[in-house]
Parts: sequence; C-alpha cells; structure tokens
Amino acid sequence: MSMSPRVVDSVAALRAQVRDWRRDGLSVAMVPTMGALHDGHISLVRIALEKADRCVVSIFLNPTQFAPSEDLDKYPRQLARDLDRLAEAGAELAFTPDVTEMYPTGFATRISVGGPAAGLESDFRPTFFDGVATVVAKLFLQASPDYAVFGEKDYQQLCVVRQLCRDLDLPVEIIGAPTVRDARGLAMSSRNAYLGEAELEVARNFNVALRQTAAALAAGGDEGSTTAEASRALVKVGFDKVDYVAARESLTLAPWRRDRDGRLLAAAWLGKTRLIDNVEVPST
Amino acid sequence: MSMSPRVVDSVAALRAQVRDWRRDGLSVAMVPTMGALHDGHISLVRIALEKADRCVVSIFLNPTQFAPSEDLDKYPRQLARDLDRLAEAGAELAFTPDVTEMYPTGFATRISVGGPAAGLESDFRPTFFDGVATVVAKLFLQASPDYAVFGEKDYQQLCVVRQLCRDLDLPVEIIGAPTVRDARGLAMSSRNAYLGEAELEVARNFNVALRQTAAALAAGGDEGSTTAEASRALVKVGFDKVDYVAARESLTLAPWRRDRDGRLLAAAWLGKTRLIDNVEVPST
Repeated sequence: MSMSPRVVDSVAALRAQVRDWRRDGLSVAMVPTMGALHDGHISLVRIALEKADRCVVSIFLNPTQFAPSEDLDKYPRQLARDLDRLAEAGAELAFTPDVTEMYPTGFATRISVGGPAAGLESDFRPTFFDGVATVVAKLFLQASPDYAVFGEKDYQQLCVVRQLCRDLDLPVEIIGAPTVRDARGLAMSSRNAYLGEAELEVARNFNVALRQTAAALAAGGDEGSTTAEASRALVKVGFDKVDYVAARESLTLAPWRRDRDGRLLAAAWLGKTRLIDNVEVPST
Repeated sequence: MSMSPRVVDSVAALRAQVRDWRRDGLSVAMVPTMGALHDGHISLVRIALEKADRCVVSIFLNPTQFAPSEDLDKYPRQLARDLDRLAEAGAELAFTPDVTEMYPTGFATRISVGGPAAGLESDFRPTFFDGVATVVAKLFLQASPDYAVFGEKDYQQLCVVRQLCRDLDLPVEIIGAPTVRDARGLAMSSRNAYLGEAELEVARNFNVALRQTAAALAAGGDEGSTTAEASRALVKVGFDKVDYVAARESLTLAPWRRDRDGRLLAAAWLGKTRLIDNVEVPST
C-alpha cells in the first residue's frame, strides 16, 4: 500500500515544502502535468525519483496554452484518480493550483521562445508555446526544482522548454523521457480518451507510419516526397486530416540534415481529436 | 580607503560567489545598471546595503533595450571609474558579463510585460520594456538576490519590473529608490553627459515644470489642458520636442484618478538627447 502524495494548492505551501526538503539536503524533481494522468506520466514520475530524492507533480490545466477553439472545456478532469496514480508511483507532493493562484487579476506577462518553437505545432497552434513557456517558467520559479522531466511525446515542447531554461538561466536540468506506448505503438495521451474503438484502431497506425517514414528517410529517401507520401498514407488508413509530417534536426528542430540525428514529427486528426507523435531519424 | 569590489564576468562565478554568501547566512541585494555610474546609482547601492548584507551591481549595457536608431554606440563606457565609485559605495561584487555571456548564439527568448508597460515610453520605444524585462529576469535568475533596487527616475521601468516579478513568481523583493537630483532639481542620468552647458541650463527646468504641473493637477486643474500646457511650457523654455507629459495612477500606471496617488511622467528632447523624469501627484 503506497502513501498518498501531500496536496497543496498555494505557491506559499509549495515553497514551504520544498524549503523543508532542501533544509534536509534533499534534491527535488518536478513533473509538470495537466492532470488526466496515464502510464506516460507515471513513467515521468519514476524517472524523476531515479534522479532526485523527492518528486513534485503539478496538476494544472493551463488555459493559456489552449486557443478558444480548442478542447480546454472537455479536457479530462479526474483529480482523485490522478492522486491514486501518483501514490502508486511514489510522488511525494501534488501541486494543484487553481487558475487565480497562477494568474491573479492583473496578470500581464508572456514569455515567447523562438528557435525550436517556430513552425510545426506553432503553425497550427500559434499561441501554444507562449502559454507553455510562461506556465513552465512560473512553475519552475514557484517550485525551484533541481530537475524537471518532460515526455518526448511532446517533442517540440521538450525542445522549447530546454531553450527556455538555457535562455533565461533557469537553473533546472531538463530530462527528456521516452514515450510510453501501448503494445501496438500508440503513444499514451490524455486525448486518447476522446477516441472510440474504431478511432483507436486507426490511431494505432500513426506510429507505424512514422517509423516506416523515418526508415525510408534514413535509407536515402527524398525528404519532400517521403513526408508527403506519409501524409497520404495516414489519410489512407483513416486519419481525417494531417497537419504536418516533417523531419527536423533533433536538438534544435532546424531543417533536417542526413548527417545529424533527426526527428520525424507529425500531427493528425481523427474526427475532432488531434494526435501528435514523433520518432527518431538516425543520421547516416 | 575602501575595498574594490570583486569583479566577475561569468554567470558561473557570480553564482559561486552568491552561493558562498548564502552558505554564510548572508542576504544579497542586486543593483542592475548599464554602467556610467553617477550619484543616483550610488544611492541605490547604499539602499541595497541597508537592506542586505551584500550588494552585487551588474554593469551590462544591454543591447536589446536599444532600438537601432538609439544611442547604444555612444552610451558612456567607463568601467574603471565605475569600479572606483562602487568601492566608495561599498558594493562587494561587480558582475560585468559581455554580450555573448548574456545572449549566447541561438538565444531566442523574449519576455513581454503588459499592464504598466503599455503606453508612455512604449509609445516611443516599442521594444524597450521587452528588452528590460528579459534582461532583468535573466539577471535575477543568475544572481538570485533577495532584493533588487531600482531608481524611481525610471518610474515606468520600476512598475514593469514589479509586475514582472509578481507575474513570473520571481522571488525578489523590488525596492524603489527616490530620484537623486542636483541642487536645482535635475535628475541624475548617464545621458546628462551628452548635454552641453546651455542644454544643462534648459534641462534644469524639466523637473521644475513637472512639479508645477503636478501641483496644478492636485489643485483641481483639468488633466488634458494642464498636461498640454506643460508640454508647451517645456518647448518655451528650450526643449526641442516633448514625447509626452502624462498623469497616471501611481501603482499600476492605469489612467489617473484624483482620489488615488498619482504620478506625472514625461519625456522630452534636447537636441539628440532624450530625458525622462517624473514626480508625485498627491491624491485629493
């Protein structure tokens, strides 16, 4: 039987707990989440606890990273279940601020990251990474963790957070964690909950197609025609729309070069649900 | 005879020194400057040392807060003299990074503060406060001071820095320090060095006119006509152009209300030199 994490909803209580840990010489890792925790999140907590003595998981459905047209209202909320899962994983602290704790009246500051934030997701969600960068900077300044763990599932986000910390001298070591997938390769995502059985069957082809495309690129395939073919293939297996399938240099998300480690990133729609995924493209 | 401050030019050395101070239980105050130190800066250091055990002064001529058309190239540079002045004031540490230490290749992040940053200076220097907010956040994250002291001379900047810290949860207490003036009321400014004797004579009317205008507002004068009259009066005494003379609510820089503490802020040109100043407008 595992201990429930302590739950705090104020920045003051969060800071007091972290200060107590530091007084005892303990290191701290943070896992920022929007709740609706799944096996992917749990793997982040386990990695956090391999690096640090204590793990704080923030559960905050950040409105500033959703556009008005997006799925903020229907995004799954399940705090009690999330806390059970954190207990199982061994996280000591859950930080569950409400919107006014994070964005009090008069809040007026925005952080914009360029570099890896350009293109890909930003072409379709133009204010998304401003919302992510601002809330992540706040969470880091509230909790002052030594480490923070982000999943490679949101690969561009991971690159943006790394750039944010480097550029603003945020003293947090960012750890990228491998994507957790089901037996057939579907990446864990809170948004998978939106999918019906038939859609799940289609979704399971997403990663398969990306792995095939990455292999074709690594084998010498032309970048433009290979990624265009991948988009057509996704529609053929049942996706309704493909936002992008694109190869990039893996560290900076600069244009892809065969002689450097690459990443193939994609976003595609199944009905009203937008899925993203990515895979390595080995250098040759 | 006073000790010279220790000079460090890397973030790593800055952090190591602050860490050593903290290990000894000492509190730390920061005074961010662009060099060309005058009595105004020295007063900030003295206030810093009343609040904290140690004072670090950054000297960094931040290019991102200058527009291409502005005076970055001719801004006074005088490090040896600055260090002498800091020795006199008792600052223990001078942080003198070069541009590549602050903005390494690939730097791509910008912090934008709304609220008090809107209007006034921003109407004439549209990217100025982005540059200020970004560099101040970096300096705070590099030095992690308990306090930072900013002069009321740059009153809007002081309001913007307060907003920045509140919004991003930067754990730094911001202290506003009264403007230091010469015997005839001219606010100390590094840019006064650009002025010839005749221009200095004109400049000494700036604060006089603002105090008269603030008194007229406090005595019931109409906001629009009183500030317009102030602009005409400044031109009459020899200013070449007035960017603005404007009354604002003193804490938020929201529109002025007679029943709240107010601030009268102004910017005006003498030849190629742009001066700013501000005074209180008491509530009635």
